[in-house]
Amino acid sequence: MSSVKRISILGSTGSIGKNTLDIVARNRNQFQVVSLASRSDVESIVRQAREYKPKLVALFDEEAACDAESSLAGSGISVLSGTEGILEASTIPEADTVVSAIVGAAGVMPTFAAVEAGKDVALANKEALVAAGSIIINEAQRTGARILPVDSEHSAVFQAIMGQDTDGVERLILTASGGPFFGKGFDILDRVTPEMALDHPRWEMGPKVTVDSATMMNKGLEVIEAHWLFGVPDERIEVVVHPQSIVHSMVEFIDGSTLAQMGVADMRLPIAFALGYPDRMSLPFEPLDLTAEGRLEFFKPDLEFFPCLSLAYKALRRGGGIPAVMNAANEVAVGAFLNGQLPFTGIPLVVAHVMETAPEVQDRNLAEILRGDSWARKAANDYIASPGV
Amino acid sequence: MSSVKRISILGSTGSIGKNTLDIVARNRNQFQVVSLASRSDVESIVRQAREYKPKLVALFDEEAACDAESSLAGSGISVLSGTEGILEASTIPEADTVVSAIVGAAGVMPTFAAVEAGKDVALANKEALVAAGSIIINEAQRTGARILPVDSEHSAVFQAIMGQDTDGVERLILTASGGPFFGKGFDILDRVTPEMALDHPRWEMGPKVTVDSATMMNKGLEVIEAHWLFGVPDERIEVVVHPQSIVHSMVEFIDGSTLAQMGVADMRLPIAFALGYPDRMSLPFEPLDLTAEGRLEFFKPDLEFFPCLSLAYKALRRGGGIPAVMNAANEVAVGAFLNGQLPFTGIPLVVAHVMETAPEVQDRNLAEILRGDSWARKAANDYIASPGV
Repeated sequence: MSSVKRISILGSTGSIGKNTLDIVARNRNQFQVVSLASRSDVESIVRQAREYKPKLVALFDEEAACDAESSLAGSGISVLSGTEGILEASTIPEADTVVSAIVGAAGVMPTFAAVEAGKDVALANKEALVAAGSIIINEAQRTGARILPVDSEHSAVFQAIMGQDTDGVERLILTASGGPFFGKGFDILDRVTPEMALDHPRWEMGPKVTVDSATMMNKGLEVIEAHWLFGVPDERIEVVVHPQSIVHSMVEFIDGSTLAQMGVADMRLPIAFALGYPDRMSLPFEPLDLTAEGRLEFFKPDLEFFPCLSLAYKALRRGGGIPAVMNAANEVAVGAFLNGQLPFTGIPLVVAHVMETAPEVQDRNLAEILRGDSWARKAANDYIASPGV
Repeated sequence: MSSVKRISILGSTGSIGKNTLDIVARNRNQFQVVSLASRSDVESIVRQAREYKPKLVALFDEEAACDAESSLAGSGISVLSGTEGILEASTIPEADTVVSAIVGAAGVMPTFAAVEAGKDVALANKEALVAAGSIIINEAQRTGARILPVDSEHSAVFQAIMGQDTDGVERLILTASGGPFFGKGFDILDRVTPEMALDHPRWEMGPKVTVDSATMMNKGLEVIEAHWLFGVPDERIEVVVHPQSIVHSMVEFIDGSTLAQMGVADMRLPIAFALGYPDRMSLPFEPLDLTAEGRLEFFKPDLEFFPCLSLAYKALRRGGGIPAVMNAANEVAVGAFLNGQLPFTGIPLVVAHVMETAPEVQDRNLAEILRGDSWARKAANDYIASPGV
């Protein structure tokens, strides 16, 4: 790499953010951190700021920002708060690449802002493209911002498509681990506790994504994200369950040839790929040894067992603001499940109900999307609070 | 594809040649056959000539050429014979791409001639690069000829490397089906008949290649070919046994990411890829369904069971003309096995003996290579004829 890449990390205190800083720490001569942003984790972000010396730290939470400001007094690091602070961090002129790793719909606005500012965006926040795919992709085309996927599945597709004529793409095949309940009987679904759902067999991720992985809504969101990232229609995006999580996804071409990207299940691989793109960096991880793994298995997903996957395809086909509605309802439902207010099987019921009762929602601009998102959150909360759910 | 690609097929009556013509037949508007060459199969080449109307037909065998000439009299198709005829077919000015599919060391000269003439070469004859890799690769760099691999393994590596920075390549991992005897006990080796060796579980190929597949010498030749095609040293080329023959080979990058090319086991896929390159063509084959396949397995090869694989690595490390010597000895040994003059276990013994007793052989020019080849053939025949082998 010829020069130092300057990066902003939105969501620096979450799982992706920490892994990003791990990559930076291993390649100090290649990267410089110019801004860090988090919702409210003062302790972590202050520690990160002291180590990586960004120009700017942003905390969404006002009180947390005040605490960080005192802790960092005299360091020369600016501390900002609120939506404005996060947007400042995502558009800071010094940054070449913005790592968009704020979880959930809260990441939509900052991701859009980074794209609008023409930054390369290493995108881990899948909700941005789920909720506002058409708007963000159009904006990226206008500003020339490159969107580099950080999800292991989309990174896999991106790597498999590199150097290939996209006219030759026939299908995208996203792999799913199946989460902790794949292959179990239907009776387990009624007994799932948050603890069980958070015990993912292959990937270490934050709680929201881990629950989405257990319902396979995560894969549904990825189907929608893949549609926008690669311009492939829903009927040519497939999901296969691959419990070993070695094949991270595949691209089938019109001649029947399939390119698959594989690797160990470590988020630092796709993060490093997005940060270093177009160069690959040498990483100190164990290389893949397929002979030690022994076998790779592939199964069709059971859509009755994983209704959230079907809901996501349905939302993509309905289009407009419906994926944003679905995503918001899912966020509320997952939160309610984690708080013990909703059984695991209630998650798809809430999402389906909100989608069915949703009014026409457009996606011509972010305001429309955010209005749909708010409506869906209220509808989901009302439904969860209503008797008999 | 913008214009018609004009192709010459050397070895048109063999397995690769026939599959090439099958692709041409399915895409008549994209390809035109300008020359066909075969050792001696008059009946097939005359039928092919009548159907595809090349400008030139070449038969190595003089008598066969005379017969073909009478059969094609009045057709306007020239018929040539001998080495000159084959070389004429491989350098015919009208051809854009030469499919080099003559089996064995007999393909070295015509392949070199096509490269020297600056043709794109769809290379199925692996012996050309095994025996004369350094010479052919240097010549290709000089003339700008592109070498497009037709072996499924090298096509896989080629596809996986496309669009990637080759500085990022860490290892090539060639897959091997293991042939008909993989996983069997050592005692089977003493009982192998030509019929058993020719019964390959996955691929339909000519007899020489099928026997090489049973001894895994085929994979050894491919390791040497991969070394020359992709400029990767022997210690970074690995072989794994993958009985399902779905993953055709893999490339591991310095970041631990691995790209694998997969597909059904049909030689028409890599042939079509080489013919159409850089475009892919739509092919009417069943797409890969990994969920139907169920599982992919990978094993380390047992080098005691498959000594030919070790011999090939040894030849590559010794370098110079030794791979040519090894290849020639192997051709003689396989011929003797197919004729019932040598047991299956004698093949690696003959090859090892000839390699051990070989004088210093250089590879500065084709004459040196061919001299090494001749010496090795004589040494192999003498050893096979000697008592006690």
